[in-house]
Amino acid sequence: MTNISMIRAAADRLNGHARRTPLLSSPFLDEIAGRRVLIKPECLQHTGSFKYRGARSAVSALDDTTRAKGVIAFSSGNHAQGVALAARQYGIPSVIVMPEDAPKLKIDNTRALGAEVVLYNRADGESREALGEQLQVERGLTLIRPYDEPQVIAGQGTTGLEIAEQAKAEGVEQADVLVCCGGGGLTSGIALALEAEAPGLRARPCEPEDFDDATRSLAAGEHRSNAQPSGSICDAIVTPTPGEITFPIMKRLCGAGLVVTEDECLRTMALAFQRLKLVIEPGGAVALAAALFRKDQIEGEAVLCTISGGNVDTNMFERALNQYGT
Amino acid sequence: MTNISMIRAAADRLNGHARRTPLLSSPFLDEIAGRRVLIKPECLQHTGSFKYRGARSAVSALDDTTRAKGVIAFSSGNHAQGVALAARQYGIPSVIVMPEDAPKLKIDNTRALGAEVVLYNRADGESREALGEQLQVERGLTLIRPYDEPQVIAGQGTTGLEIAEQAKAEGVEQADVLVCCGGGGLTSGIALALEAEAPGLRARPCEPEDFDDATRSLAAGEHRSNAQPSGSICDAIVTPTPGEITFPIMKRLCGAGLVVTEDECLRTMALAFQRLKLVIEPGGAVALAAALFRKDQIEGEAVLCTISGGNVDTNMFERALNQYGT
Repeated sequence: MTNISMIRAAADRLNGHARRTPLLSSPFLDEIAGRRVLIKPECLQHTGSFKYRGARSAVSALDDTTRAKGVIAFSSGNHAQGVALAARQYGIPSVIVMPEDAPKLKIDNTRALGAEVVLYNRADGESREALGEQLQVERGLTLIRPYDEPQVIAGQGTTGLEIAEQAKAEGVEQADVLVCCGGGGLTSGIALALEAEAPGLRARPCEPEDFDDATRSLAAGEHRSNAQPSGSICDAIVTPTPGEITFPIMKRLCGAGLVVTEDECLRTMALAFQRLKLVIEPGGAVALAAALFRKDQIEGEAVLCTISGGNVDTNMFERALNQYGT
Repeated sequence: MTNISMIRAAADRLNGHARRTPLLSSPFLDEIAGRRVLIKPECLQHTGSFKYRGARSAVSALDDTTRAKGVIAFSSGNHAQGVALAARQYGIPSVIVMPEDAPKLKIDNTRALGAEVVLYNRADGESREALGEQLQVERGLTLIRPYDEPQVIAGQGTTGLEIAEQAKAEGVEQADVLVCCGGGGLTSGIALALEAEAPGLRARPCEPEDFDDATRSLAAGEHRSNAQPSGSICDAIVTPTPGEITFPIMKRLCGAGLVVTEDECLRTMALAFQRLKLVIEPGGAVALAAALFRKDQIEGEAVLCTISGGNVDTNMFERALNQYGT
């Protein structure tokens, strides 16, 4: 189970590798939100999302012999690129198992970062696991899970250490920290970091409507699942239910979840373009959208929020600008 | 005349106010450039451009009595917003004289930042100066020039102090530093900072074609002017000729200028969208465009470049994505 010592150790291993993203703000966003909004833009992280932190943490935590054999991950998106880059930095092989209908650009990017991409047929549910197990056994690869993995949570939690320091420097010691939530790795990691370093800050998961498994699970006190496995424009943060490791941490430490609409995510993308000069993906927008459009569900004079990633294609970005740009 | 002590003093005054922008990079951009590219994204600065640094520096350098009377600036764009925000932070009045045909959004933003906007007819060349002088005399306002002003150059030069530190942390001690150049405030300020703090780094101005007054002035060793006063999509960095104060500094310290096409700027905007998750304006793209597309004119294993701003409207941004997005 991840704890604060593991997060601090991960921060040491990430030092000089993961980018320390700044804390951004805009008076125009403050006005919409009715309070001060401080934004942690992990779209500026290497590979365009916070996933690199967890990937690098997990790869760097392996012993040399194990690591030298290589790593494997299942991902159609941000985790794939994070693992590929971390592996390349260590000069070790990485295999990324991706659905054959994944966007060509993401497949190309993952390959360009040095990974061997193995495609599977998404329609055949068994094939992915079988393929992955076979590769692990044959080549001695270590599986890097996207969130239910203590060292991945520890790496993602380093975002929380930075938020604690940066919020303090801004004079904010009592506030909600809104986190884009899929499986809960980033949310639980940040929650653990805040518990130790900034007890006045409280993590709260944010999700798109119809894919609010974490929010409903927290309200119920036990795992709840989404009705649909996919179908959100916020695909990067959609998972069926919170993780086995992440959920108990969230349950102990997090405030209630916040749920936003897809339109609010698109509107937030247009605002981030105009006011922050940031490119954010729909899933990466949910926490800022909650800060802007769920103000009655938030208390305090300030709110912090993460932007989890910026890997959005041109069409989706133009959709946001065309609908909500000025 | 600005010197390194003034830049260091400006950095002290800006501490806790100007944002320390990170140094970004992407392996995909390195590949295009054929060398390591380190990017200083001042589009993430308050008000979306480096202009805030100079404005805050100049306003904070005034004595209390003078400052209390307020400040005035002529600008249709980034400098206007920088001065307006700096004035608001001090709780003093600011008057921004803008052409009446300036984009409504920029006028609205400047007003929203608390400035009194006074419009003039661009066709009547005399009216602007006369209007400004009248306001200065009547109200005792202090004029904040956009670049030919020692304390503005000092504030803009704080970007160079950060570049010197950040480049060193990245192990880069010998490289060109490409700077988006209009009147030369940012270029000369960075050049002075590098002279003192990182003598292996050399500033070089970058400009759009047909508006390469700094490049031609440096080559000639004396002021040269552009044939046209305006008409570039890189409008934010177009000035008729280098400043009276900035040019001698540039002449003493800068390497040769680099010139890029408008199409290369648009292509760079699309690449920054995809690879850096940044929104940059055409004028803010010239230095990165030079790093990517003028590689034969650059020496060394690494190159640094500034992005000067990100205040671009939706239509221009979509033009870049439609032409060069993938």
